[in-house]
Amino acid sequence: MLGNGIEAFGLRDDAAAVEFPGGGPLVVSVDSVVEGVHVDLSMSSPADVGWKALMGALSDLAAVGATPVGALVALCVPGGSGHGDLALAVMAGAAEASAAGGCPVVGGDVSEAGELAVAVTVLGTTETGGPPPVGRAGARPGDVVLVTGPCGASAAGLRGLRARGGAAAEDEQGEEDQEEEEPGEQVGRLAEAHRRPVARLREGVLARVAGARAMIDVSDGLALDLHRLADASGVGFRLESVPVAPGATEDEALGGGEDYELLIAIGRGDAHAFGDRCVAEGLRRPIETGIVVEDESVRNLRGRRLERMGWQHRVG
Amino acid sequence: MLGNGIEAFGLRDDAAAVEFPGGGPLVVSVDSVVEGVHVDLSMSSPADVGWKALMGALSDLAAVGATPVGALVALCVPGGSGHGDLALAVMAGAAEASAAGGCPVVGGDVSEAGELAVAVTVLGTTETGGPPPVGRAGARPGDVVLVTGPCGASAAGLRGLRARGGAAAEDEQGEEDQEEEEPGEQVGRLAEAHRRPVARLREGVLARVAGARAMIDVSDGLALDLHRLADASGVGFRLESVPVAPGATEDEALGGGEDYELLIAIGRGDAHAFGDRCVAEGLRRPIETGIVVEDESVRNLRGRRLERMGWQHRVG
Repeated sequence: MLGNGIEAFGLRDDAAAVEFPGGGPLVVSVDSVVEGVHVDLSMSSPADVGWKALMGALSDLAAVGATPVGALVALCVPGGSGHGDLALAVMAGAAEASAAGGCPVVGGDVSEAGELAVAVTVLGTTETGGPPPVGRAGARPGDVVLVTGPCGASAAGLRGLRARGGAAAEDEQGEEDQEEEEPGEQVGRLAEAHRRPVARLREGVLARVAGARAMIDVSDGLALDLHRLADASGVGFRLESVPVAPGATEDEALGGGEDYELLIAIGRGDAHAFGDRCVAEGLRRPIETGIVVEDESVRNLRGRRLERMGWQHRVG
Repeated sequence: MLGNGIEAFGLRDDAAAVEFPGGGPLVVSVDSVVEGVHVDLSMSSPADVGWKALMGALSDLAAVGATPVGALVALCVPGGSGHGDLALAVMAGAAEASAAGGCPVVGGDVSEAGELAVAVTVLGTTETGGPPPVGRAGARPGDVVLVTGPCGASAAGLRGLRARGGAAAEDEQGEEDQEEEEPGEQVGRLAEAHRRPVARLREGVLARVAGARAMIDVSDGLALDLHRLADASGVGFRLESVPVAPGATEDEALGGGEDYELLIAIGRGDAHAFGDRCVAEGLRRPIETGIVVEDESVRNLRGRRLERMGWQHRVG
């Protein structure tokens, strides 16, 4: 059932052979974006949907410290007039994300469906002889909890877009009263963070090589994703502070998804070396937010229980 | 956006590392099954949908002569009561196909959506030092056109199910008057062919190793898929006969999809050796249906133009 439509994207044979750098492990992940569940087409363009689907999958590679090798895009688009244009627009956004992430689209499939849905599978690897991919389960008491950047920008961007009635807000000047930048600039930056999130691929690789013990990407909210890391590792945590993106609230930083920053548990010495390496490579210095503790029941922010707030999938 | 739901299937980390046999190429494909487009839930059970999605993707590997390594399943299920059961039923069918095809499910994602849709990505490879994966484009004048078995059973099965008002027909005894087997047995066999098609993985590998020049799986109809092979190769064909599955019509063999038999263009000497090898391994001897000719405009069955009949995707 490989759709004819995909032939427009230069993919013809039933299966594609991928240039795979020998030696390292093959790392794979799949991620879906569904209209009305993960994305609202009055707030995001079809190209944004393609971008987000591909970047969401790439963020799963970033979260284990893998480098992308290739992506496959399965696209479901509603029938009727304009569906060909819609498919092309979504694929164009996916192609932009593919270029930004250095991950060529090597296969795909287009189907008709009742609503827009995109499932992206990404393939990646780690360098031969290097540390293996990092899971969620390796955090140890005494590890530092780092986050690669402030959170909540995507959620704040969605709030701003909703207040302005959708995507048209991009070209407007906002009327908010914020200190750090011109209101219109901030609105645009936050909307961009919502519509075009960026996977932290380089940070993930550097963290793995620096000795990170556990990692997860903030796709469903810092609080929920940190709980998941702690659950998998059988540990607790004490957070002193949460880095909040300018223009976002702390609740948005804790509970808003799709920031794609990485949460990293790493030994203190390795944390310093990792931070220096990030700065040397022109990346933001990761922010220390707390420590890992042995008692699994301790899940605190500033001494109070941190709830499992965040994007809870309705399925499963 | 890796759904929590998928954790029920033992898949927890953001990305999974796959045991990949070193040396051979990485071959990938993605295939989608959407309720109402590719499958009718009054004719097929949720488990059948999972089976068909995984087998459809495996058939793409069979069509290039690759051996499966792993699969990723992206599942969209309608919300509301029972959606968890629906997701589990679909995954159970995918797991059955996974076992039948020797292709472990290594990753997945569950999302809520308006309708049931399953996108399966499969990874495969070919043995180190062996012939590379076979595309559609290598057929040469004088090649024999083989098909691995008679076609049309899936389309005939769907016809039978429709006549009997759906999946319940499985347990009934049919009333048709057919010669070769008991009517009820034939109805059951054809319904099974529709609901549980099987990818010709072993035949694909044997054909590649035997020197097949071009291959394609019959997913959209023998006529349409043979035209595609001829288009890609820049050749024509003359068919003498078309193998029709017992209980199916020739139109169903030519235009019905999802039989997953392989169409193979191969030199005459290699064709004999390939056939003998199939028989030696307990497989059906491939059926010679015609030859490849140089004139691209010749696309004939018994001297008359063969139309591009078959399942035309509505998209693209």
